[in-house]
Amino acid sequence: MSQQRWVRLSTEKPTSAVYVLGSEISLDVCGSAPAGAYAFQVQKTLGVNYVVRDTNISQVPSRVPRWPLDIRVEVVVTMNKSSRRVNEGKVTISYYKANEETPMAKAVLLLTCVEISLDADSSRSGTVTKKVENKKEWTWGPEGSGAILLVNSDRERLGAKDMDNQDEKVGSEKDLKDMSIMILTTRGPDNIFEKYQLVLHVSASENDKVRVFHAQDGKPVSQYPAVLGPKNASYEVKGNRNQEAVFYVEGLAFPDANFSGLVSFHVTLLENPPEKFPAPPIFSDTVVFRIAPWIMTPNTLQPRTVYVCRERKNTDFVDAMKELASRTGCALIICEGEKNQGDRWIQDEMEIGYVQAPHEWFPVVFDSPRNGMLKDFPFKDVLGPDFGYVKLEQGDETPSELDCFGNLEVSPPVTVRGKQYPLGRILIGSYISRKENRQMFKFVRDFLYAQKVQSPVELDSDWLAVGHVDEFLAFVPAPDRKGFRLLLASPSACYKLLKEKEQEGYGDALMFEGKLDTCDQVKIKCILNDQELRSSNEYFQKSIDWNRDTLKRELGLTEEDIIDIPQLFKPATLEIVAGKAIAYFPDLVNMLVLERHLGIPKPFGPIVNKECCLEREVRRLLEPLGLSCTFIDDYKTYHRMYGEIHCGTNVCRKPFSFKWWNMTMP
Amino acid sequence: MSQQRWVRLSTEKPTSAVYVLGSEISLDVCGSAPAGAYAFQVQKTLGVNYVVRDTNISQVPSRVPRWPLDIRVEVVVTMNKSSRRVNEGKVTISYYKANEETPMAKAVLLLTCVEISLDADSSRSGTVTKKVENKKEWTWGPEGSGAILLVNSDRERLGAKDMDNQDEKVGSEKDLKDMSIMILTTRGPDNIFEKYQLVLHVSASENDKVRVFHAQDGKPVSQYPAVLGPKNASYEVKGNRNQEAVFYVEGLAFPDANFSGLVSFHVTLLENPPEKFPAPPIFSDTVVFRIAPWIMTPNTLQPRTVYVCRERKNTDFVDAMKELASRTGCALIICEGEKNQGDRWIQDEMEIGYVQAPHEWFPVVFDSPRNGMLKDFPFKDVLGPDFGYVKLEQGDETPSELDCFGNLEVSPPVTVRGKQYPLGRILIGSYISRKENRQMFKFVRDFLYAQKVQSPVELDSDWLAVGHVDEFLAFVPAPDRKGFRLLLASPSACYKLLKEKEQEGYGDALMFEGKLDTCDQVKIKCILNDQELRSSNEYFQKSIDWNRDTLKRELGLTEEDIIDIPQLFKPATLEIVAGKAIAYFPDLVNMLVLERHLGIPKPFGPIVNKECCLEREVRRLLEPLGLSCTFIDDYKTYHRMYGEIHCGTNVCRKPFSFKWWNMTMP
Repeated sequence: MSQQRWVRLSTEKPTSAVYVLGSEISLDVCGSAPAGAYAFQVQKTLGVNYVVRDTNISQVPSRVPRWPLDIRVEVVVTMNKSSRRVNEGKVTISYYKANEETPMAKAVLLLTCVEISLDADSSRSGTVTKKVENKKEWTWGPEGSGAILLVNSDRERLGAKDMDNQDEKVGSEKDLKDMSIMILTTRGPDNIFEKYQLVLHVSASENDKVRVFHAQDGKPVSQYPAVLGPKNASYEVKGNRNQEAVFYVEGLAFPDANFSGLVSFHVTLLENPPEKFPAPPIFSDTVVFRIAPWIMTPNTLQPRTVYVCRERKNTDFVDAMKELASRTGCALIICEGEKNQGDRWIQDEMEIGYVQAPHEWFPVVFDSPRNGMLKDFPFKDVLGPDFGYVKLEQGDETPSELDCFGNLEVSPPVTVRGKQYPLGRILIGSYISRKENRQMFKFVRDFLYAQKVQSPVELDSDWLAVGHVDEFLAFVPAPDRKGFRLLLASPSACYKLLKEKEQEGYGDALMFEGKLDTCDQVKIKCILNDQELRSSNEYFQKSIDWNRDTLKRELGLTEEDIIDIPQLFKPATLEIVAGKAIAYFPDLVNMLVLERHLGIPKPFGPIVNKECCLEREVRRLLEPLGLSCTFIDDYKTYHRMYGEIHCGTNVCRKPFSFKWWNMTMP
Repeated sequence: MSQQRWVRLSTEKPTSAVYVLGSEISLDVCGSAPAGAYAFQVQKTLGVNYVVRDTNISQVPSRVPRWPLDIRVEVVVTMNKSSRRVNEGKVTISYYKANEETPMAKAVLLLTCVEISLDADSSRSGTVTKKVENKKEWTWGPEGSGAILLVNSDRERLGAKDMDNQDEKVGSEKDLKDMSIMILTTRGPDNIFEKYQLVLHVSASENDKVRVFHAQDGKPVSQYPAVLGPKNASYEVKGNRNQEAVFYVEGLAFPDANFSGLVSFHVTLLENPPEKFPAPPIFSDTVVFRIAPWIMTPNTLQPRTVYVCRERKNTDFVDAMKELASRTGCALIICEGEKNQGDRWIQDEMEIGYVQAPHEWFPVVFDSPRNGMLKDFPFKDVLGPDFGYVKLEQGDETPSELDCFGNLEVSPPVTVRGKQYPLGRILIGSYISRKENRQMFKFVRDFLYAQKVQSPVELDSDWLAVGHVDEFLAFVPAPDRKGFRLLLASPSACYKLLKEKEQEGYGDALMFEGKLDTCDQVKIKCILNDQELRSSNEYFQKSIDWNRDTLKRELGLTEEDIIDIPQLFKPATLEIVAGKAIAYFPDLVNMLVLERHLGIPKPFGPIVNKECCLEREVRRLLEPLGLSCTFIDDYKTYHRMYGEIHCGTNVCRKPFSFKWWNMTMP
C-alpha cells in the first residue's frame, strides 16, 4: 500500500508541495472550496497523473468532466520520475457554481517530485536490492522478505582488546564485510533539499541494539563516523543529496527474552520551518532488519576444528585426538596447560555455533556461565578474525553443573508431526519436578528460546550426579532413514548383554583389567549379582526412558531411530548428589563424532574371546551404519573425574546448507 | 496426541506398571526377548486393550496370531477405566522360536489403571471443564482453547494495605472469585499412590508470575495454604488421592516485554524410589493459562463513573460535570482538595481499563509514571473492592510530559485492510524523528504492546508544548458508518470559518470577551491579519495532517470518518518548548464524552448574531450525529494552565461486549 499524504489547497495562493516517488498525494478539494461551489474540475501538466476515486459518485453532466464537491470524491495525484526543477508539476482545481461554465475560483498545487528510498538486502540475495515490496515487514520462508544483520562479534585485528562491535570505529575493510549495507537514495532538484531535513532514525527502544556507520567518499574506513547507535537514535543526513548515501550496519545484541531481534530504520523527510516551530514530517520510508540468531551445529555436520586440553598426563589422549581429527582432515587446536590450569572440560566451557546473513557467515563461541580455570579461553583464544563471541550478563548467582554446555546439545534436522525443524532442535538438560531441583539459568534458557530457529526441548538430566545430557545421549550420522541415529545409554541393554555372556560361560570374565587401584576383581557374575547396582540401574533406566519418550515425541522419532548402547551407572556417594547417577564404566555415548569416525571412551569391559564384549557390542550396533569406532583410553584422565571424551573435547563445525531465514514459522 | 510411555519387560519376573487413563504404553517387546526368539503373541485380561502397529509387517503364519520380533512392530496398550485394585490388568507376551508351537519364554506386565488429570476452564465457559482437547496449548479465537487468569490486583478489604495478590493469603470468599479454579483429579486403588509422588509444578521462569492456593475441605478460605508462587515452583500433593484437589490460581504480573502472559502448570507422577535414587517421572499432565491483558476503553463505551478534582476556584466546573454525568446516569467521584493539592490533571495521572476472564471481570487503573500531587490517588482511592491497580516499576529517570496518560488514548473498534481490531487500537503520542525528542518511557510502551489485543499506533504529539494526543484528537459515537467519528483539531478549518465571518461583515467581532486580564481586544480581523500566528498554524496543521494520514492508514479511516473541528494554536514562549503549540482558545477536541453528551471547553469565540460562531460551527458539525454539545467554561481553572476538560477528568467505562480471547491473532 502506498504511503498517502493529505495536502491542503488554497484558492488564495498556489500551494507548493514535495511529492515523493511511489507515494500518493490526496487533495483536500472540499476543504479549500469557496462558499457556493458545487463542482470541480482537475487539470494537470505533463508528468503528473491523477485519478478520481469513488465509483459511487457519477460525474456532473457537462461538456468538460466535472466532479461533484463531495467528501467521498477523492482526488489522488502521483508522478513518475523525479523533477529536474522545483515546482515542475502543476495541478489546478477549478471550482464551479451550479450550472455555470466559468470557474468561480481556482486552487493551484505546484509539485516537485523527489526520490527518497531507504534500502537494504531485503530480498536476501547478498546485495542491496531496491524497490523490494514489503521491505518494512520481516517475514520467514523462501518467499519471505526483510534484511538480515549480524552481531559483529568477532575480532578482526589480532591485538584488539575486544569484539569489533565494542567500539565506535570501523576496524578495516574486512570489518565492513561483517556489516550489512543500507543505502539512502535521494534524487530531485538540488535546491529542493535546502528546504527540508532528511533524518535517519531508529526507535529509541532499539538503538542500543545496533550501530550505523556512514561511508565517506574517498576516505579510509577508519574515518567513517558512527551516526546511529546507543548514543544516538537519530541523525540528520546532510551533504550532496543527489546521490546515494551508503551506511554500514552492525548488530550489538542477539535476540533475547526482551528483544525480538527486529530493528527498523526509518528515513523521514521533514519540512524545515522558520523560527522554532516543530518541523512537520511529510514522508517516511522504512527498512527492517532481523539480527541473525546464534545457531548450534549437530554432530551430523562436517567438523572444521577439534579442541582439546593438554595436561600433564594426557599425552596419549591428545595424540589419539590428533589422529582422529586427521582422518577427517580437520585441525586440532590444543589448549595448553598454562591456559587451562588443569581444567580439561572444554565441552562445558563453551558451545560453538555460528551466525549467518546472505552476504557473510562466521562461527560464534557462546561462553558458558561456568567459570572454571578455562574461563578466559573462549574470549582470549577462540574469539578472533571471523570467529565471534557471546557471553550473557550474569548476576551474582553461582552456576550449577546444569549450566555447563555439556548439558546443551542439538539434534540433527527433524520433522515432527508435519512441522519441520531443518536446523534441528536444541536439547537442554533440566529437571522435571522433583522437590529439590537444579536447572540451567533462566537467562541462558531465555537466550536459547529467543533464537527461535532451533526450538528447545527440555530433558531431565537431574537424575545424573553431574547432570549433563551428553552423559546419556549422542547423535551419530547414518546413511538411511532421517540421516542419523539417536544413541541412548542403556543399563537394560548392558544387563542383557552381560547375562548372555554369563550364560555363554564367561561369568568370570573381568572388567577394568589393569585399571583398578585395588586388587578387587570385577567379574561379570559379580556385577549381575550386585542387587543394589541392579536396583539403582532400574531407576536410572526409567529416567532415561522418560527422556526417550520425550525425545520420540519432540523429535518425531520411532524406535528404529534409536540405538540402545549398553551402559551401567552407579549411585554417587558424595552428599549433595547422593544417589544420583555416575558412569560405572567409561560412558560409551559420551563420544566425539567426526563424520563417520567416532572417538569412543574405551570401556574396559569383560574380555571374552580376547575382545572386550562391550566394544564388540558397540561395533555390532554401529558399524552397519558405516561408522568407524575408535575406542580411546580416557580412564584415568577423564573417566575417574566424572567425564569422558565428549566432555573433554569441543568441535567447530561447518554451517547447515539450509539458510535459517528460509524456515517457515507459525 | 496421547502421551506415550515406553515400558520394559522381563522374562524373569513380572513387571508392574501404572497406566494413566488416556495415555499409551508402548511395550519393549524386542528388548526383553530371549536369544533365539523369532515371533511373539500377545494375551491380555479383560479391561486391557492392545493394538499392534505397523501395517508393513504381516503376521507370522500360524494357528494363533503371532507377530515377528521386529523393532518396527509396536505393541501399544491402553485401558478404559481406573482400576479397583493394584495390578488388576495383565498383558502376557509369549516368545516363540521359529516353527515351534510352545512358547520358549513369557514376559508378564501387570497394570494398574489410574486417572490423573489437571483441568481448568480451558473451554472458556466460566467453569472448569474436564477432558478438553488441547488444554496444553493456548489458542486465540472463538474456536480457541486455553484457560484464563486474572492479575488479582484489586483490594477486597477496605482497610487492607495492598492489592490482594501482594500477600500469601486468601482474603475472603470474594477474593477467591477473582482467581481461576484448577482441579487435580486422581482416581485409582488407594494403596497405589503410596508408591508414587504427585507433584504440582510450574516452570521456574514462570513461578514469580502466579500464586496457587490449595483449597482445604471444611476449612475457612483464610487457611488455604499458598502452595506455588514466587517462593515455590513445585508442591507435592499429599492426602487422600481418591478425590479432586481444588486449587485457586491468581496472577501476579501482567504480560510485559519479557513475559508473554502464558503460564503452564504441570502435575507429574513420579515413582517413589527406595534410598536416595532420583525419582523417575512416568506421567505428566499440563494445563495452560494466559494472564488476561489490561484493556483500555474508548469513548464509545458506556460510562460508569466520572472523576474530577475539586480545588478552590472550580466549583462551577465541578457542578457542570455533575450535571453532565447525571444525564447518563453515571456517578461523579470528586477528588477533594486535600487529596489533589491543586493538581487537577486527573486524566494524566491514570488510565482506567479492565481485565476479564470468562468467570469474572473488573476495572483496573493504570497509574502513570507521572508523579504529581495526585500521585497517591489511584492507589489510595481508586484501588478497592473489584477495582484493580497496576503501576510499572520505574527507574530513576524523570518522566516527561509524554508519559502522562492524556497522551494515551484508544480508538473504537476498527477494521484495517481486512484485519479486525474489535477492541480498537491504542494511540500513543510519541515523536517522529526530530533531532531532540521526547517520548513515552520504553517500559510503558513495552507494557502497552505486550497486552497484544489493542495493537498500539504511535502518533506525533511532540509538536505540542505539552505533547498529549488528547490535545488534537477525540472520538465521538455516531449512529452510522463505523459507529464513531474521529475529531481532529484544525487550524485550516478555523481560518476558513473566521474568514467567512469577516466576509459576512463580522471582522470586528471580539474573542475572549470578559476573559482577558488586559484591555486587549481580539477581533476576527486581527487574528486573520496576524501573519506569525497564521504561519505557525500552517506548520501545526501539517503536523496534524501527518497524524491524520497515520490514523487513516492505521485505523482504516476515510475522510468521511473524520470531522475537522476549528481550532487555533499559538507557539509557546517558554524556552524548553519554544515554538511548540499551545491552544490559542480553549481546545474544543479536549472534551469529555459520555454517550451522546459532550462536555466541550467553551471557546469564547467571536460573537456573531449573539452567538459564539465557534460553538455554532461545532454544533453544526456534531448535532446531526445525534450528539448533544454542552460548552463548559474551563478558561481560568484549566485552559490558562494548558489543559482543558478532558485533561481535568477521567472516566471508568463498561467493558466491551466482545471478549478479548475471541480475537483472531496472526
